[in-house]
Amino acid sequence: MTAPRTEPEDGLPTSVTVYEVGPRDGLQAETDVVPTDVKAELCRRLYVAGVRDLELTSFVPPTWIPQLTDAAEVAASVRIPDGARGVALVPNLRGLERARDAGIGEIAVVVSATEAFAHANLNTTKEGAVERAEDVVAEASGMPVRGYVSMAFGDPWEGEVDIDAVAATAARLYAAGCGTIALGDTIGVATPGLTARVVRETIAAGVPVEAVALHLHDTYGQALANVHAALRLGVSEFDAAVGGLGRCPYAKGATGNLATEALVWMLDGLGIETGIDVGAMAATTTWLSRMRGVRAPSNIATALAAAASKEES
Amino acid sequence: MTAPRTEPEDGLPTSVTVYEVGPRDGLQAETDVVPTDVKAELCRRLYVAGVRDLELTSFVPPTWIPQLTDAAEVAASVRIPDGARGVALVPNLRGLERARDAGIGEIAVVVSATEAFAHANLNTTKEGAVERAEDVVAEASGMPVRGYVSMAFGDPWEGEVDIDAVAATAARLYAAGCGTIALGDTIGVATPGLTARVVRETIAAGVPVEAVALHLHDTYGQALANVHAALRLGVSEFDAAVGGLGRCPYAKGATGNLATEALVWMLDGLGIETGIDVGAMAATTTWLSRMRGVRAPSNIATALAAAASKEES
Repeated sequence: MTAPRTEPEDGLPTSVTVYEVGPRDGLQAETDVVPTDVKAELCRRLYVAGVRDLELTSFVPPTWIPQLTDAAEVAASVRIPDGARGVALVPNLRGLERARDAGIGEIAVVVSATEAFAHANLNTTKEGAVERAEDVVAEASGMPVRGYVSMAFGDPWEGEVDIDAVAATAARLYAAGCGTIALGDTIGVATPGLTARVVRETIAAGVPVEAVALHLHDTYGQALANVHAALRLGVSEFDAAVGGLGRCPYAKGATGNLATEALVWMLDGLGIETGIDVGAMAATTTWLSRMRGVRAPSNIATALAAAASKEES
Repeated sequence: MTAPRTEPEDGLPTSVTVYEVGPRDGLQAETDVVPTDVKAELCRRLYVAGVRDLELTSFVPPTWIPQLTDAAEVAASVRIPDGARGVALVPNLRGLERARDAGIGEIAVVVSATEAFAHANLNTTKEGAVERAEDVVAEASGMPVRGYVSMAFGDPWEGEVDIDAVAATAARLYAAGCGTIALGDTIGVATPGLTARVVRETIAAGVPVEAVALHLHDTYGQALANVHAALRLGVSEFDAAVGGLGRCPYAKGATGNLATEALVWMLDGLGIETGIDVGAMAATTTWLSRMRGVRAPSNIATALAAAASKEES
């Protein structure tokens, strides 16, 4: 089952990069620890489903995130297909060293738009996080680097975020050498007007639109509306997690990432190429949910699984 | 907790009618039968939360939908506040008579964009359903009537829908005297390009944009992106159900209506007036879920409940 298609809308990109963060941002926020071989098989299935841009894991200190202590083992177990990417998040120089030792060829760094998140999640100040990221980019010497700006649309402690500061931080990461700047709505509060404004100001601060990505969480159900608003501004890279993996650490029981199936369904319907097979993606969600003994996190994953079982019967 | 706001976007409506269908379309698709007094209290709380446009129930034959056999009792129990509306769906002349006897002053009729849905859910043909609706509108003699066109964006049996036929059907209902035509994505498959196309063709067929409403289900997570696309065309009435009540009868386990909280959150963020307090709406969802002994159906309801309990503690 696929989305009913229309002719592509004027001014929208004809193809989009779907940057899959399920194995990293998704699994790091789920409460269970998924075994290494299941993670590796998940990555394999994601590539088979058409994912070309995959964040495999994070080389955070093992005490920070128990869900991802096996970063090196995951990296060693996954064969990255020709033409595809396998990225790892690294929080600092030590993480970069571990990622390199594990054979990782592309990394992501993370900074914060707010002091509160920098303190709570990065163990430093806003400025300290940017300097740490700049050090990592410099030390990575030519390795492609993606830069995340977390809490770029709102923060559970500080509330509204200073958009000028977000844009300036994004521009610093870009100037430091990050090829892509992923603006993160870590708590999922943004709506299309705010999304457009943050994107426009980021571009005005010196980040070309081709280098802008959006990392949207769907906690308040807004993510796809925001993607649609950003597409109209020419943004052509969006993060998502298979099946909507991930939970919101700031709202107990609430969900996290935009589901890749929902994103691909919309892009399919808009006639925008992603290379991803929405049915294979939903089957991967069903498989992973079964391996973990949980329900699929997103509604669309449930709906697609129901549709697939009807087609088979 | 409310959405971070931006200045209103050019060309978008400054206020929007949120047409609440939870007590009718939501509860009719849930598997449990909610007691009459809980339904009446739900309606009362919805009005208190700021809802002004409420579909209370449906006067379908009692054997069709066991969840709504108490339509007359619900109508008798709910006091409609000054300036607010209390609408009931009526499937035929007998339903109109029962609604009138129950003191209902405003009704909704339903037709189908596809033969399969007309047969399966309305026990007639497409043409038969339109004629039946025309008879009801004529007999209602001046009472305000809302007309639903179900399956206007896709159908689980027939797949893609003939857009010309949808627009023509909408225009017939409008010509017959329906003041609002609600285009229904009953299975939630539409994406923003298709939504815009169906809206444009409906307007071209003779329904003024002020008379166009969208009734979107969120089964595939697309509803809010479609609302955003329709707002840009000037559509200013959208259906939603408190907490995302309702299930998709065509995809077991999948959810149904767009959650009112998610819709109001987006409109708040866009600076568009609805008159609805998103926090009071979320509290109503929490209350109803507790009365029914179930989890809140939508993610945003869970997130808002978590945010509210943090603010209290």
